[in-house]
Amino acid sequence: MEIINGGITSPKGFLASGVHCGIKKYKKDLAVIYSEVPCDAAGVFTTNKVKAAPVLVSMGNIKNDKIQAIVINSGNANACTGEKGLEDAREMVKLVSELLKIDSSSVLVSSTGVIGVPLPMDKVRNGISMACAELNKMGGQDAAEAIMTTDTCKKEIAIQFEIQGVPIRIGAMAKGSGMIHPNMATMLAFITADLNIDKTLLHEALKDSVEKSFNMITVDGDTSTNDMVVILANGMAGNRRIMQKDGDYFKFLEVLNFVCTELAKMIIRDGEGATKFIEVKAKNARTIEDAKKATKAVLNSNLVKTATFGEDANWGRILAAVGYSGADFDVNKIDIYFKSNDLVVKVAENGAGLMFDEELAKKILVNKEIEIILDFKDGEYEAVGFGCDLSYEYVRINGSYRT
Amino acid sequence: MEIINGGITSPKGFLASGVHCGIKKYKKDLAVIYSEVPCDAAGVFTTNKVKAAPVLVSMGNIKNDKIQAIVINSGNANACTGEKGLEDAREMVKLVSELLKIDSSSVLVSSTGVIGVPLPMDKVRNGISMACAELNKMGGQDAAEAIMTTDTCKKEIAIQFEIQGVPIRIGAMAKGSGMIHPNMATMLAFITADLNIDKTLLHEALKDSVEKSFNMITVDGDTSTNDMVVILANGMAGNRRIMQKDGDYFKFLEVLNFVCTELAKMIIRDGEGATKFIEVKAKNARTIEDAKKATKAVLNSNLVKTATFGEDANWGRILAAVGYSGADFDVNKIDIYFKSNDLVVKVAENGAGLMFDEELAKKILVNKEIEIILDFKDGEYEAVGFGCDLSYEYVRINGSYRT
Repeated sequence: MEIINGGITSPKGFLASGVHCGIKKYKKDLAVIYSEVPCDAAGVFTTNKVKAAPVLVSMGNIKNDKIQAIVINSGNANACTGEKGLEDAREMVKLVSELLKIDSSSVLVSSTGVIGVPLPMDKVRNGISMACAELNKMGGQDAAEAIMTTDTCKKEIAIQFEIQGVPIRIGAMAKGSGMIHPNMATMLAFITADLNIDKTLLHEALKDSVEKSFNMITVDGDTSTNDMVVILANGMAGNRRIMQKDGDYFKFLEVLNFVCTELAKMIIRDGEGATKFIEVKAKNARTIEDAKKATKAVLNSNLVKTATFGEDANWGRILAAVGYSGADFDVNKIDIYFKSNDLVVKVAENGAGLMFDEELAKKILVNKEIEIILDFKDGEYEAVGFGCDLSYEYVRINGSYRT
Repeated sequence: MEIINGGITSPKGFLASGVHCGIKKYKKDLAVIYSEVPCDAAGVFTTNKVKAAPVLVSMGNIKNDKIQAIVINSGNANACTGEKGLEDAREMVKLVSELLKIDSSSVLVSSTGVIGVPLPMDKVRNGISMACAELNKMGGQDAAEAIMTTDTCKKEIAIQFEIQGVPIRIGAMAKGSGMIHPNMATMLAFITADLNIDKTLLHEALKDSVEKSFNMITVDGDTSTNDMVVILANGMAGNRRIMQKDGDYFKFLEVLNFVCTELAKMIIRDGEGATKFIEVKAKNARTIEDAKKATKAVLNSNLVKTATFGEDANWGRILAAVGYSGADFDVNKIDIYFKSNDLVVKVAENGAGLMFDEELAKKILVNKEIEIILDFKDGEYEAVGFGCDLSYEYVRINGSYRT
């Protein structure tokens, strides 16, 4: 497995483009992804009861046999826009299918931006025409730029690996810069692959990877109106089609896990006003669910976030968060550590505070990347999650997003 | 029902005191509440799996027949302090019982402050001696002061009402100034009454009131290591003992609901760095649980909190929070309003945004007390909850609490 320069247009047969059509004032705001041949596709969509129109339309279309194109706009989420919103999303799909001369059932649509405002369809129509005309092999970067909202940088990755000697490429782009939970910043990710794989297996692999990556930077069910992660596999690499969970499947799954985890980390690193990247590892837990619950509660605690921002070794808040997480554990067994680079300090043992070296703790907490380790000493399950601190800047950005 | 000046020493037979013994540098840090006669008592304790030593001791003692005194220290939570912490909490109980010549099984203990640091027992012992010696009929205020941590003001209330012509008094004090959920700021409340009431009914009434008040400013299960709400009823008013859920019981319940709700609101108003008080009312919901889930999700959304701080009518974040709350509702029916004083603006109807008057919305949102109304138009159940905004100040306070 090798990381290569590129993104969604790195795999064979994928073209893309990103244009500015005026939904946003100055920045690119509309992207199209296109495969030269129809793709097996899989998607994971928001579990929010309030689903944006493009999510509803794409959830319908992805059930169809093949997908060949995706149109994405930023600047307007087309969420909470009623019947008109659905019509607009459907029109976006129809326009792309007409311009690219593909079946409208093979087009997905995605939006991100302000909620509750109707799409400026004149601009969107114009944008779709431009984007379809500009589709090209180097367009991945433009597309990655066009899906950004409060993101401060574009998020792309491309990987090359081999299956049975055949070189395979996976490319991906994502947007998302909110502190994710408990906020509603939309998270979008689009993954392309020239792999040949059965659709059902592709879906299972995606679900599995999302669970270990994007779902570890958010909380189940606590998702925005527009979240979606979609993967397209067009088979153009020419490998023998993966039809079962064999070695080839797991090789692919490993790469997909890596891609999704790297994108999830990029989103956290670009967290609104984030100054520190926090990794929480819960180990030796009774079950995987207990490990996940504990990890997420710590990452989502405003008090842990602000303490980390303040570089305060406040392990009491961490233990308290584990306590209310719903995880089943023995309070009298848990150990807590702070770690960064080669430095480690154990701050609590068997559920009680230690007289730890405050100087050492400070040396760890001044770093940009902090690891919090929860050792339950009570089982063999582990979970890892990613988050960031809560800063003044977060309040500033989110106090005035809409206006 | 009449609000009178006073607090926990307003009902007949209750004495209290609050002293400075050096757990904190300068401020009062130890309080004792004492009733001249043994009381029926009821308590509601944190559901956090990590329970502080005083919580464990008090949960044990409150099962006993009668309670006659409570000792409370601030500045140190005696949480995550292992076996030594339990010994210390038990010693606090024993000292009070010896000094006041009452059974040690009739004493409760409570602590709030820093987690994971052993209690400075020399100071605590000295404080208990002083506090027991200083017990007096005007001591409610001192006690209310002595239980404060990051609170900027003490929180007390006293009510007089009648049952069958007999004047009854309820007094109460509380501490808590965190933004409560999702943080771990401890919430303590102590309620005294000279009412004569059966212990089981007292417990039911307390549970009922806490559910509608303190639990509507926090999230079930998301509680600190030290939270507790305790009520003592000494019967000295001389009313006929309330033995069943008759008119007298419900009259008392109404007063208790009022007391708890007022204390809960005081805690929110004193929220760390809070600049605005937010009331969320979910009405016409399918069930009471749906109404509560929606209310809490909106109050706990960092994005709604920061938007309120920024005086931004961002109803999309509100609807999105309702969407992920787990509440069962029809997305195409819900209306959303902002309200303050006499001004109301409807910002969303049937799940979609309205072209509302932004000037009017601004006039509402600049106020200190904002109401958000969710009208599900889908049932007959209602819930009301209270919260506050998320400000720069919150980050400042919580970034450096421990150090």
